[in-house]
Amino acid sequence: MKFFDETDTKVFALGGLGEVGKNMYCVMTGNEIIITDAGITFPEGDLLGVDYVIPDFTFLKKNENKIKALFITHGHEDHIGGIPFLLQAVNIPVIYAPNQAVGLIKRKLEDRNIRYDNLKIYTEDTKVKFKTMEVEFFRTTHSIPDSHGICIHTPNGTIVTTGDFKFDFTPIGPMANLHKMASIGSKGVTLLLSDSTNALNEGMSASESKVDEALSEIFTRHHGRIIIATFASNIYRLKHIVDTCKRNDRKIAIFGRSMENNIEISIEGGYIKNKEIFITPEEANLLPPNKVCLLCTGSQGEPLAALSRIANGSHKQIKIQPQDLVVFSSSAIPGNALSISKTINKLYLQGVKVYTNTLLSDIHTSGHASEEELKLMLHLIKPKYFMPFHGEYRMLKKHTDIAVDCGIPRENTFVMKNGEVLSIKKGKITKVNSIQAGDIYVDGNRIGEVSNAVMRDRKIMSSDGIVVVIANIDTAENKLLGNPNITTRGFVLVNDNIELLKQLEEISKKAIISKIQKHVNYNEIKLEIINSLSSSIFEKTGRRPIILPVIMDIKKDVKINS
Amino acid sequence: MKFFDETDTKVFALGGLGEVGKNMYCVMTGNEIIITDAGITFPEGDLLGVDYVIPDFTFLKKNENKIKALFITHGHEDHIGGIPFLLQAVNIPVIYAPNQAVGLIKRKLEDRNIRYDNLKIYTEDTKVKFKTMEVEFFRTTHSIPDSHGICIHTPNGTIVTTGDFKFDFTPIGPMANLHKMASIGSKGVTLLLSDSTNALNEGMSASESKVDEALSEIFTRHHGRIIIATFASNIYRLKHIVDTCKRNDRKIAIFGRSMENNIEISIEGGYIKNKEIFITPEEANLLPPNKVCLLCTGSQGEPLAALSRIANGSHKQIKIQPQDLVVFSSSAIPGNALSISKTINKLYLQGVKVYTNTLLSDIHTSGHASEEELKLMLHLIKPKYFMPFHGEYRMLKKHTDIAVDCGIPRENTFVMKNGEVLSIKKGKITKVNSIQAGDIYVDGNRIGEVSNAVMRDRKIMSSDGIVVVIANIDTAENKLLGNPNITTRGFVLVNDNIELLKQLEEISKKAIISKIQKHVNYNEIKLEIINSLSSSIFEKTGRRPIILPVIMDIKKDVKINS
Repeated sequence: MKFFDETDTKVFALGGLGEVGKNMYCVMTGNEIIITDAGITFPEGDLLGVDYVIPDFTFLKKNENKIKALFITHGHEDHIGGIPFLLQAVNIPVIYAPNQAVGLIKRKLEDRNIRYDNLKIYTEDTKVKFKTMEVEFFRTTHSIPDSHGICIHTPNGTIVTTGDFKFDFTPIGPMANLHKMASIGSKGVTLLLSDSTNALNEGMSASESKVDEALSEIFTRHHGRIIIATFASNIYRLKHIVDTCKRNDRKIAIFGRSMENNIEISIEGGYIKNKEIFITPEEANLLPPNKVCLLCTGSQGEPLAALSRIANGSHKQIKIQPQDLVVFSSSAIPGNALSISKTINKLYLQGVKVYTNTLLSDIHTSGHASEEELKLMLHLIKPKYFMPFHGEYRMLKKHTDIAVDCGIPRENTFVMKNGEVLSIKKGKITKVNSIQAGDIYVDGNRIGEVSNAVMRDRKIMSSDGIVVVIANIDTAENKLLGNPNITTRGFVLVNDNIELLKQLEEISKKAIISKIQKHVNYNEIKLEIINSLSSSIFEKTGRRPIILPVIMDIKKDVKINS
Repeated sequence: MKFFDETDTKVFALGGLGEVGKNMYCVMTGNEIIITDAGITFPEGDLLGVDYVIPDFTFLKKNENKIKALFITHGHEDHIGGIPFLLQAVNIPVIYAPNQAVGLIKRKLEDRNIRYDNLKIYTEDTKVKFKTMEVEFFRTTHSIPDSHGICIHTPNGTIVTTGDFKFDFTPIGPMANLHKMASIGSKGVTLLLSDSTNALNEGMSASESKVDEALSEIFTRHHGRIIIATFASNIYRLKHIVDTCKRNDRKIAIFGRSMENNIEISIEGGYIKNKEIFITPEEANLLPPNKVCLLCTGSQGEPLAALSRIANGSHKQIKIQPQDLVVFSSSAIPGNALSISKTINKLYLQGVKVYTNTLLSDIHTSGHASEEELKLMLHLIKPKYFMPFHGEYRMLKKHTDIAVDCGIPRENTFVMKNGEVLSIKKGKITKVNSIQAGDIYVDGNRIGEVSNAVMRDRKIMSSDGIVVVIANIDTAENKLLGNPNITTRGFVLVNDNIELLKQLEEISKKAIISKIQKHVNYNEIKLEIINSLSSSIFEKTGRRPIILPVIMDIKKDVKINS
């Protein structure tokens, strides 16, 4: 089957399936590609040294001339973080994003000195027309203002992607537009792509207003300083905290760069008012404790974040006081449980009271829909076919079961992988071939070149270090010049192990001489050094460092040695 | 104040306070020291390459002649894992342990070729007398058979340490001896040290019998193979599974070395019967699916464990079948959430049904007491003073609050750190000075020598790699011989970066020549290489690898270069 069958519409993800992160979904009809979102993922622990993971843009690069636009559902990193990398790799004619996201994208591009002139704001009433497709929007509720679902009308049927959403019937911001969702649904939707992040959670997520009540109660009861750690990206939460401080006559000092950025942009966008409530840390230290709230990053125990440094006692401006109350208005992202525990233990050791969402459930609620909310979306949109997105496989699978409970036939549901392609033809969907997709690593400012070999070396060095053996050889005369030099890093403490290192020098010398007497073949010598050293090092120390032999002949000009 | 005040009794921990792990508690009266437990901790993610963490034995080494005995409460690693290291460092005249623990300790010593002849079995009726102290035992319930609390009578009062415990009124093994606890309590206890692991959990932990019911139901309903992952150390759970398989006519194949060890020792000790139920993986592959149960390690998603390899498709003997059911009869140890998720997602991708304790709460219960059980212990023992142990600070703190709720005056409670010392004199307790305590790292077979410098190097190399610069210099003639050699590991892929490495060679050459022209000082040259390379590498790549310059003069005899 030819991929460019112009009579069908194709749907596929370059990121976001089998993972919570780097969302990127594409809809393609004939010669037109529409992209939704361009996110990043923060790497998990085993990706040593990787700063971000981004989608593989190869397919987009190859089909650059077909790309019509990138639409952004909302301003979170897993939806906009990949934009700077995308723009460097692929020509994107126009980006449409809602107001708050535009502010965040602009700052992101400025930070990386990327000039891009075609960033446009859309509102719920915007309609964007292309040759074969038309795009419209509907307002949703999420933890950041201006979140939208996207509805793409194609000749082969209507495709709805929800973006990230929850239903909150007493929201802090405007209500989700239930009527528009209902109206889109009643006109007939062929395929729904819906947010699976919290598909494993039963019932309905708590309203942000509950959090507001819980925070208000804490503010009324407590008379020392209140230190709140929360997600900098949770703009509605920040808005609460500001409003609650205002009502309780407390000023706010902000700690952490991402927190400052988000608050600045939210003030510019009019989402957070009361600009005069913010004070500097120095001013906070001069006020009585019951007039102060410290708002920090570090809710995940990140070692360098403000709260962690406050807990350590290593923060320059803020020292813990016994009457402080620390509130984690957040939940633990999987993988962060240990670092959060450490921070809490340090705070306890200083005698401070700590509230977390496991002790006081109402101080945090998720921005993603639980099971009953997912059902509501399914019933409003009434799709013929269903493809869960934004989640790990177990979430996608559970979301599919939920859809089946809501009356979608199981054969009309598709648990997909990144790169797998659905083809819609006259309202009927089949799974067709796949395109290239995968994880691209960004380490420092270099994209996509942290290879498995580099990662494997990092992994070995991280647990056992490296032993470098340098030998100068006179190849003309077949002899070793001087003794081999042994230098180590991350292996053993040199001063405590002079004897051991002498032994390794001897072993290397023997290995070299045993091979040099026959004929000088660098690779053979290296192999002999590696074999004899690695076994004796393991025997003596129980460790398996990288052994890096370097053979040089200074009479010849020395080449780069890998 | 003199530490060896012979008229008092001192109590302190060398491990187990502020942490869940490496338990080691000491009671000292006059010239006699009694030790309870000698555990290890498995290192957290930031201790690169460390295999175990053990207590600092310095105090015990210095006071070796005073040590009378080591008592073991039960056979889990955080209570017995440190014994091989302790015996290598300190002379311990006798070790008393209950039967199951003795089996595990023996195997541990054999594995490390350590000969020790004074390992004695105690039962609940054993009493051990020393000059100033007498020790007796009471049976508790925990997830391993033969768990005991220890009661030490001293001239200054009675000290009770609970070991690890829960209360289970329908236990799988024998009941905890409530009457003996009550009798000890009614004779008067000065100090109670009690297990704080689950102090943050309200209510009461579920009985193991509930797990038995849940497992039975699963076995009745499911007709494919059943694959169960659980803690190898949870002997009662293993016993259930064996009994349930027996009733349901399934044979069991075991996967994972620790699982095999624990089952062997439990069969030897008579805790697990039905030896004939165990079959080899090959035999399992020949039986119909409804006759097979696979019992594996890997409940924490450990990458090399049996279940992870089965999930990956990389297990030699076992391939997943669509009708398999995988049961995690376990809970997530903090820090393992991500690796567990990965395993579950891989299993889902293969279309297999997975049960975890978040989906089906009754398939696991903890072996540690929740709040109401801790209260029961406090009421049975009725101590005058209370010191929570076996827990992080927030657990110790919560446990103290629970003790206060049970009527212990707050000033009689002590949240202690490892090394801090309580002094009991005629039934009155005060906090006195501290002794040396801390974390000792074991990497490979070398103890205590993973220094901060080594760890820091490992950390840098794990994220950015290493760049080795080798220069041969003729110091007599002040000149560089040949070009410097640039070799890297974990930095960039060499073949893709020939140009970059050439540039680094040039920069190094310039750096060396700029310094060599004046006079040859190795350290100055090295510093110049490091400075010029690190800034240009960061600019070009955004990375900060270790830069390791090695300067050699082959005319002189080359020394080990650090």
